[in-house]
Amino acid sequence: MRVCDLIERKRDRGRLGGAEIGTLIAAYTRGEVPDYQMSALLMAIYLNGLDDGELTAWTEAMLWSGQVLDLSHIPGAKVDKHSTGGVGDKISLPLAPLVAACGIKVPMVSGRGLGHTGGTLDKLESISGFRTDLSVERFLELVETLGLALIGQTAEIAPADKKLYALRDVTGTVSSIPLIASSIMSKKMAEGIDALVLDVKVGSGAFMRTAAEARVLARTMVAVGEGMGRRVVALLTDMDQPLGRTCGNALEMVEAIEILQGGGPPDVRSLTLTLARTMLELGGVDPAEAERALDDGRALERFRTIVAAQGGDVRQVDDPSLLPKAPQVEAFLAPTSGYITAIDTQAVGLAALVLGAGRQQHADAVDPRVGLVLDRRLGDPVEAGEPILWIHHDGKGLEDARQRLAAAWTIGEAPPAPRPLIIDRIDRATPATPVFAAAT
Amino acid sequence: MRVCDLIERKRDRGRLGGAEIGTLIAAYTRGEVPDYQMSALLMAIYLNGLDDGELTAWTEAMLWSGQVLDLSHIPGAKVDKHSTGGVGDKISLPLAPLVAACGIKVPMVSGRGLGHTGGTLDKLESISGFRTDLSVERFLELVETLGLALIGQTAEIAPADKKLYALRDVTGTVSSIPLIASSIMSKKMAEGIDALVLDVKVGSGAFMRTAAEARVLARTMVAVGEGMGRRVVALLTDMDQPLGRTCGNALEMVEAIEILQGGGPPDVRSLTLTLARTMLELGGVDPAEAERALDDGRALERFRTIVAAQGGDVRQVDDPSLLPKAPQVEAFLAPTSGYITAIDTQAVGLAALVLGAGRQQHADAVDPRVGLVLDRRLGDPVEAGEPILWIHHDGKGLEDARQRLAAAWTIGEAPPAPRPLIIDRIDRATPATPVFAAAT
Repeated sequence: MRVCDLIERKRDRGRLGGAEIGTLIAAYTRGEVPDYQMSALLMAIYLNGLDDGELTAWTEAMLWSGQVLDLSHIPGAKVDKHSTGGVGDKISLPLAPLVAACGIKVPMVSGRGLGHTGGTLDKLESISGFRTDLSVERFLELVETLGLALIGQTAEIAPADKKLYALRDVTGTVSSIPLIASSIMSKKMAEGIDALVLDVKVGSGAFMRTAAEARVLARTMVAVGEGMGRRVVALLTDMDQPLGRTCGNALEMVEAIEILQGGGPPDVRSLTLTLARTMLELGGVDPAEAERALDDGRALERFRTIVAAQGGDVRQVDDPSLLPKAPQVEAFLAPTSGYITAIDTQAVGLAALVLGAGRQQHADAVDPRVGLVLDRRLGDPVEAGEPILWIHHDGKGLEDARQRLAAAWTIGEAPPAPRPLIIDRIDRATPATPVFAAAT
Repeated sequence: MRVCDLIERKRDRGRLGGAEIGTLIAAYTRGEVPDYQMSALLMAIYLNGLDDGELTAWTEAMLWSGQVLDLSHIPGAKVDKHSTGGVGDKISLPLAPLVAACGIKVPMVSGRGLGHTGGTLDKLESISGFRTDLSVERFLELVETLGLALIGQTAEIAPADKKLYALRDVTGTVSSIPLIASSIMSKKMAEGIDALVLDVKVGSGAFMRTAAEARVLARTMVAVGEGMGRRVVALLTDMDQPLGRTCGNALEMVEAIEILQGGGPPDVRSLTLTLARTMLELGGVDPAEAERALDDGRALERFRTIVAAQGGDVRQVDDPSLLPKAPQVEAFLAPTSGYITAIDTQAVGLAALVLGAGRQQHADAVDPRVGLVLDRRLGDPVEAGEPILWIHHDGKGLEDARQRLAAAWTIGEAPPAPRPLIIDRIDRATPATPVFAAAT
């Protein structure tokens, strides 16, 4: 195999063979293919795409570049959820214990926040003592005995993806649907799961700004996962405003505990239950069990158990006022009266970031205390001078956050049309959209 | 300037600014931009192109990455010719002294052979003692006093092109029209010329296989050169068969001397005169002077003078039988009777290469003695068992050359339609072809 031949073939819209892709990714991971050849190929893939067969081979090659967990000895269906990332998306926190409480095994490997999007690991670590860096043995033991475990990416999982992602980040090849899909799916498939529910976010706070783009990404990931023998369902969900009322690590943990207590904002409860029902469906459990397990306290109890098992302080779950709090809170006031007609959700996420809730760079530390609590949502009426939201801060980044927030809200004379939280469901039976059907 | 922003803009079919391109190329030449970013950008350019303005900026940036000769103190028009490369293309050898004999200054920087195409420097060096590695001072002195000099690329000319070409060679980005055009034009513009005639080869022995492709490359190079304030005319010429009767360094030198003596194959004479007339036209000299200077011996005399000035043995010019000769000659016979209907000209070039006349790699040495002498051309009748050509060899690569030649000739029942040697002329007044006009 000459790497240059593969580059030229993809450049000319040709097809790469499965064995070629496998050999290439393995050689690249071992350092035998130089970055300058891989980046030229990545750009050719960015512009000319990968078909479902090539993409499955690419994803499998990245999967097998590292450790692949074997959960076959653990009884029961193993199902995980992945979100493409948004603002205020704390759904994993109540979802994993809820689904585990219904009898599904949830081996959840999560990420940290980067840019305007938050990360599940950062939110979990707002609980004192909570450890996300468990050994693989301990991870498997928790999944087997408690039905779930919540850890971070290990160095052993999909090293090809780590190396490729770092290269994509500096060569303008991040926002490629096949490359995004293979990156996500290779890491998720390494968890040893039977099925996966994808929450593909759409809107001003998401990587996919339109439902059309999100649908293509969703269909692509479903095809890859199904091509690898797993059941995969994707939900397209709204990210044109932050999810729930909170944005920031401890603040979101408080909201997640409210959900597990049977309360919390209606959108967070609704999305948690919808994703839970879908995971139960794929795992062969009655979806109606989700609402019962949330309302009878089993989900909360399972959360308490996993927090304790992973070293966290359960008193903070029982009394969320013990979670870290920012020293200062100030109101952000509506400049005019009217209805909230649009929110630049990415700007809201970046406002939280500059307060200290997120990261510009991978190596940055986060402050669990700071963030935003929203009083108004899209379509809500507001009077000039009333608080739209509350800024929880310690002084750092405050002026920057204020400026970002000032530009993020649009107040108009009439409320916008209400929009659905769940936009679409994509599974293996979903037909291609006309534009893609025409191209085949 | 963030390099990643430029990559993303070109990826998304945007336009790069002239200052951005200048900064980028300068930083890349200094080693401040990594190859993996440049190769991603090159692939984006390969697939999305550069417009005339971007291309002129790219070419100027490569030009100014190194030494640019200043010939303004030398009186008279400075005009050069560049060929995109073919098989048996020895035109520069008679052309440069012919045009110089008519009063034009010809500061010719040539290349070596690579792959199936030969190089002017290798042909010149078949004359004992001929030196092509003159200092810039000596080069300028010869141009001023003798009207021409024939040297090789120096390390100081367009170092950005050298570095970029090496990267393109291993990243599938060689065959891009804007990148080819900028590579050629940056090196030619560094010669300090006023005008340039481009010989863009078309056919089975050329990089451009179709007239349509060649026309796009020609138009692109004309636009770049004119955009930099030089007069540039391109001729599209036939390379569906080797030019003249010879292919190989000393063999081609013999043929070039025949042309300068007023003889030689009609196609070589015709193309030499056509290119000479075009160079005279651009230099403000009566084009009819070309034929007179060839036939009255002035061109030959000027060749003798420059050979002597560059250290060559003039006796070999006066008696070409003194040039190096292969120890063995064998006939290559027609397998059947009929008419020569097609020649795989690249295969003929590669047959000469394997005998030792050319190079697979830049570092290979060439054997001046070996090559091919053709007895038949397209459309000629041939009887089974008659020689089509003669293989001049010393045993090396003989069997490989025979096999390549056996597959190169097509003999049919009827002669093909005759084809013109000069296919088209492209200058600044040539309108865009409809397919390109429609795209603007």
